Amino acid sequence: MPLIVDVHTHVYPPAYMRMLRGRKTVPYVHDPSDNPNADPRLIILSSDDDPSIPLSHRGRPVDSSYWDISVKLSFMRQHGINVSVISLANPWLDFIEPAEAQMWAERINDDLEATCAKVNKEADPEGLLKLEDKESLFAMGALPLSAPEASVVVGEIKRLKTLPHLRGVIMGTTGLGKGLDDRALDPVWEALQESDTLMFLHPHYGLPDEAFGGTEATGRYGHVLPLALGFPLETTIAVTRMLLSGVFDRFPKLKILLAHSGGTLPFLAGRIESCILHERKFISGGGDVQGPQRSIWDVLKTNIYLDAVVYGKPGLEAAIAASGSDRLMFGTDHPFFPPLDDKESDWPSVTTNYKAIHATFEGKSDTVKDVLGGNAAQILNLK
Amino acid sequence: MPLIVDVHTHVYPPAYMRMLRGRKTVPYVHDPSDNPNADPRLIILSSDDDPSIPLSHRGRPVDSSYWDISVKLSFMRQHGINVSVISLANPWLDFIEPAEAQMWAERINDDLEATCAKVNKEADPEGLLKLEDKESLFAMGALPLSAPEASVVVGEIKRLKTLPHLRGVIMGTTGLGKGLDDRALDPVWEALQESDTLMFLHPHYGLPDEAFGGTEATGRYGHVLPLALGFPLETTIAVTRMLLSGVFDRFPKLKILLAHSGGTLPFLAGRIESCILHERKFISGGGDVQGPQRSIWDVLKTNIYLDAVVYGKPGLEAAIAASGSDRLMFGTDHPFFPPLDDKESDWPSVTTNYKAIHATFEGKSDTVKDVLGGNAAQILNLK
Repeated sequence: MPLIVDVHTHVYPPAYMRMLRGRKTVPYVHDPSDNPNADPRLIILSSDDDPSIPLSHRGRPVDSSYWDISVKLSFMRQHGINVSVISLANPWLDFIEPAEAQMWAERINDDLEATCAKVNKEADPEGLLKLEDKESLFAMGALPLSAPEASVVVGEIKRLKTLPHLRGVIMGTTGLGKGLDDRALDPVWEALQESDTLMFLHPHYGLPDEAFGGTEATGRYGHVLPLALGFPLETTIAVTRMLLSGVFDRFPKLKILLAHSGGTLPFLAGRIESCILHERKFISGGGDVQGPQRSIWDVLKTNIYLDAVVYGKPGLEAAIAASGSDRLMFGTDHPFFPPLDDKESDWPSVTTNYKAIHATFEGKSDTVKDVLGGNAAQILNLK
Repeated sequence: MPLIVDVHTHVYPPAYMRMLRGRKTVPYVHDPSDNPNADPRLIILSSDDDPSIPLSHRGRPVDSSYWDISVKLSFMRQHGINVSVISLANPWLDFIEPAEAQMWAERINDDLEATCAKVNKEADPEGLLKLEDKESLFAMGALPLSAPEASVVVGEIKRLKTLPHLRGVIMGTTGLGKGLDDRALDPVWEALQESDTLMFLHPHYGLPDEAFGGTEATGRYGHVLPLALGFPLETTIAVTRMLLSGVFDRFPKLKILLAHSGGTLPFLAGRIESCILHERKFISGGGDVQGPQRSIWDVLKTNIYLDAVVYGKPGLEAAIAASGSDRLMFGTDHPFFPPLDDKESDWPSVTTNYKAIHATFEGKSDTVKDVLGGNAAQILNLK
């Protein structure tokens, strides 16, 4: 069996869950008191914090798959996954009080390192097995982005290089609070580039409700519109703002893994390029603003990596045409999107992505192997 | 030379321009008085109606390519286009006073019919030539959506079938004011389905500025974010709301041409499908709301047609994988996106799409012919 690596799989470590339980504003966790057997409720989206809904029904129910690593390992075994590169789930540490940001980042990242070390040691006490012969873990760290100084973030990026199982960082789209085109992030980009650290860019905030026709329209369809459309657009907007503000010109060696096959970036890259070419505000169009110097096509093939979490052949075809199959890596988004009927069965959210990869690379078994695990092993230096 | 048909090409007929000149709120046209040689300014996006910018610099300059059909014919000749299926440009008649909606729809549509008839007669007085031997025009009609009753809209849909050069209708995403999942639109969908009328769904309103980080962030990059990302998402949201509300279940024979290769629909279809499957609000997920019965994949291959205005191979690959190359049709978006340096030269916005089609279907000359014109001739019954 080929090596299978999941680069998109989340955890809320126990310490993080305890912290969420102590909060009353988004994000927070509520334990229904009326039913001791009920799962706790996780309220992480502002749109879910609806006072008209009783607390015991607000948000989504979460079970031990969110914090118990043994459940993650069972899930991996069930779906044939050898390696998971676990990352803190959204909204990461975006909401932490500035003075506590460094402490929480260190606590979470040390916890991730300890979890990986323990699991890997238990699976392979002698350190003699190959990755495909066991279940093992690596991790992406969280950053203290709400810290009072960017230097705190830079310090944590450097410290992560000393933790043996850390293989990158996960980040949302708000940066230091003003988006990823904020010049104040330059020290962070520089630290990521200098330390050759992969940044996993992941959505959380979606789009304003008005984009979907207001809260009434959004509510009618549950989470479909914000999750299916808002999340991917958030990622696309964030990385496009990075491009437009020249981040990839100033830091040409940045490595960024985009969640959900780039949101919609591969599909819209041509339109982005065309709109830049026709923009009168940019110097190239007769205006006075410096537009981006590097083409989005170049960035897609040089700086961007994509997970294969797009649930269909059309998305994968676009991803390959934009970035190449050698930059595409299998993922699951576990523990989100569990089966609603029987949690013991195979997860459709996972099997759909397996099927899409096999359908897209039909007859190319080497490429299937690369996308399922080979690319990740090489790009993330897993061994 | 193969037949080349442009299914995405806009006009503002002279009567429409006169009406816009009489307005002071969006949409409106302003003629700079300080410079008699300056082009009029077209202000159609709310974000362009910025009081801090002088009127003579607000919006975008427009020239005769927007209203003079002879300029359209020159553009066609220059780019090897034989047939243009012209449609009123955004925002169509969305903003018209209810009592005047029917009058304006009839005026505009009769004007489009007369323009097509005149051009085609002049190009081919005897009616003996083939489409590929001349430049000829067909049109998509505008609908009086602001009329007090949906029956007015239905009446115009029926009347359009009596106009020999009309081949469909163009519509924005607001419908009767509440979006395309509004049940009050059912008579309109029924009339479109019954009369076998293609509906060209086109964006105009984009996304709220906050989606892009507020007006400051948006303004910094001119029109890039709203046009490159906001427009395609608006289309995707609109058609997804149609799906979620069961429009395609109730009207399974609707024919919808989506602008810009579907916005992002082909790329996101799998994620939409997955989010529907995992939605607890829907009956299928244990809730009490009826979710859509038909799969988005089925709708993409049965109800949806896509233009090839996506400026790159990744978008086209996704479009083909989602809907099939037999549902894909060349377009230009003329007169938007003219060259900024020399308007006499070939338009990069057009040549980019030509190149993308040739690159995507390399070695498949029959498919290239179909996408460039054969599909449109058959789907739109052009002869």
